[in-house]
Amino acid sequence: MTRADVAVSGSEALPIMELAMAFYGSRALMSALELDVFSALADGPLPRAELAGRAGIHPRVAADFLDALVALKLLERDDAGYHNSELADRFLVRGRASYAGGFAEMGNASLFPLWGKLTDLLRTGEPQIPPGGNFFEGLYRRPEAARKFMDAMDAFNEEIATVLGSLVDWSDFATLVDVGGARGDLATRLVLAHPGLTATTFDLPPVRELFDERVAEAGVADRVRFEGGNFVEDELPSADVYVFGHILHGRDLDQRRNLVARAFAGLRPGGVLFVYDRMIDDDRREKTLSLLGSVGMALVSPVGSEYTSADCRSWLTDAGFEVVATKPLAATDTVVAARKPA
Amino acid sequence: MTRADVAVSGSEALPIMELAMAFYGSRALMSALELDVFSALADGPLPRAELAGRAGIHPRVAADFLDALVALKLLERDDAGYHNSELADRFLVRGRASYAGGFAEMGNASLFPLWGKLTDLLRTGEPQIPPGGNFFEGLYRRPEAARKFMDAMDAFNEEIATVLGSLVDWSDFATLVDVGGARGDLATRLVLAHPGLTATTFDLPPVRELFDERVAEAGVADRVRFEGGNFVEDELPSADVYVFGHILHGRDLDQRRNLVARAFAGLRPGGVLFVYDRMIDDDRREKTLSLLGSVGMALVSPVGSEYTSADCRSWLTDAGFEVVATKPLAATDTVVAARKPA
Repeated sequence: MTRADVAVSGSEALPIMELAMAFYGSRALMSALELDVFSALADGPLPRAELAGRAGIHPRVAADFLDALVALKLLERDDAGYHNSELADRFLVRGRASYAGGFAEMGNASLFPLWGKLTDLLRTGEPQIPPGGNFFEGLYRRPEAARKFMDAMDAFNEEIATVLGSLVDWSDFATLVDVGGARGDLATRLVLAHPGLTATTFDLPPVRELFDERVAEAGVADRVRFEGGNFVEDELPSADVYVFGHILHGRDLDQRRNLVARAFAGLRPGGVLFVYDRMIDDDRREKTLSLLGSVGMALVSPVGSEYTSADCRSWLTDAGFEVVATKPLAATDTVVAARKPA
Repeated sequence: MTRADVAVSGSEALPIMELAMAFYGSRALMSALELDVFSALADGPLPRAELAGRAGIHPRVAADFLDALVALKLLERDDAGYHNSELADRFLVRGRASYAGGFAEMGNASLFPLWGKLTDLLRTGEPQIPPGGNFFEGLYRRPEAARKFMDAMDAFNEEIATVLGSLVDWSDFATLVDVGGARGDLATRLVLAHPGLTATTFDLPPVRELFDERVAEAGVADRVRFEGGNFVEDELPSADVYVFGHILHGRDLDQRRNLVARAFAGLRPGGVLFVYDRMIDDDRREKTLSLLGSVGMALVSPVGSEYTSADCRSWLTDAGFEVVATKPLAATDTVVAARKPA
């Protein structure tokens, strides 16, 4: 076949071109957050020149960049100038409780350059971050980075608390341990939703300061306490409910099974373990962001990966649990709930 | 409003998360091309271990990476192992005439890290490539990079030749000049499609070698000749048809108008000028890749940008042309055809 034999094909290749250029849109979101475009529009529309001035965008590129944000459905444009779209107004104005830009901010700071090393990961199987030191220990030495990471992780906790609340009857539960619960944001929401409940947030000691800040702000310091430790090695306090949120994906298979077994041992009979992560669909062919996210775990962790909800259920039943629910959660997660027989 | 007042919202923020993570998919495509996954499957399916072995993918990440390519619709998976999807089989097997991976390969080599500097561009308005030297002069000093760039640029030329052929009656045309026509790929296709036509490819002298290779391969060395020069400064040969493909977007407004005026002067009465670029929709709110692509031009060029087809038509009519057609072209382009009155 010579080149000239090829049939008309450019438009049919559009999905390839869109995928090849998809990162332009990610970068536009990241830079818009870095320049705080959406906060500048929090109180109403602005003409282009004024918006560009406030966000520090040079006139040469202002029209194209801001109109690209219109095409991405993050801004709208009319005679009054640029407005936040409903999506941006809810999720991208900094300081609002519903702010969900933390994940994209993490992308800006670290994930984007890291994914530039994807081919090296694929060839070697080795993480592409500087060697030595635990990811979280390193993170917690940098308070601003730690706060951003937690903002990103906590963005969907209200939905998570609501879904966990709906999956089982909480009226008999008095105590909860959120394992790897960071600054206690989810535990705070759960005790506020369930008046009879007290909670323990179990995480590395350096998180303590951010925890104290969060529970004081919410006025629940008497109902949510912090216990410093390493959940891989240290004994977990006994409780009616355990939450394993975004912790199993950072561990190898033996540690996952070990953690599930220790949860079974530590739970009171009738108690419930909730496990959530960005789980892969059981047939491993649909959830693009979970599969790519699993590759992304390998960029930062020597053992981490995402896993299917079927995998998760098998670890739970092998440990003696009865699985009671599997449900989509927040933007990209899945939760599995399992009960220790009474 | 306290954090706990926020309504369930994680799933509604999914478009934000998808945009934030869209670059994972771009990187997966780029690395798959770099590791030549699709060529390894050109002759049929392979089991995972064998495919990973041929592509040099480490076992730790092979399942997640290859299944992510399934979710991205680039591979399919069944009992025989992994297959190329129809899309990948047509467009991503290296060496096939329909190969369209060149653009993603460019992304891998240079665009991805460059977009990491987007915020710097937005703040300064300055290109983020090393200063000094013309982009193309620099490119043509690196033959392998030049060949990849041309592969990317030429990927959709058969569709472009077909569409240009359909927009006007070519039976009266004897001569064509493709201005900035690189290695002569489009000119070659056009003379093959129009038996009475001879063509001149006008481009910088260093392109000559790649041009000679291409026209010899196609057996049209007697009908397509090369003229070395700088189209911004040098006189254009007179002709019945001019093609300005992907050249105006690299120029400032004065140069665009000047080039259009010189085309008008150089064309024989009744002759046609075709202009194509990744044009922006006239209302500047729909064509995401054109608007982002325009920002991307500013990353590499001190004056370049995309433009709307309305802008293009105004330059053409101001120069004396009659616009005869505006039409979508190939994956992301638009072509405007204009006639010099007879």
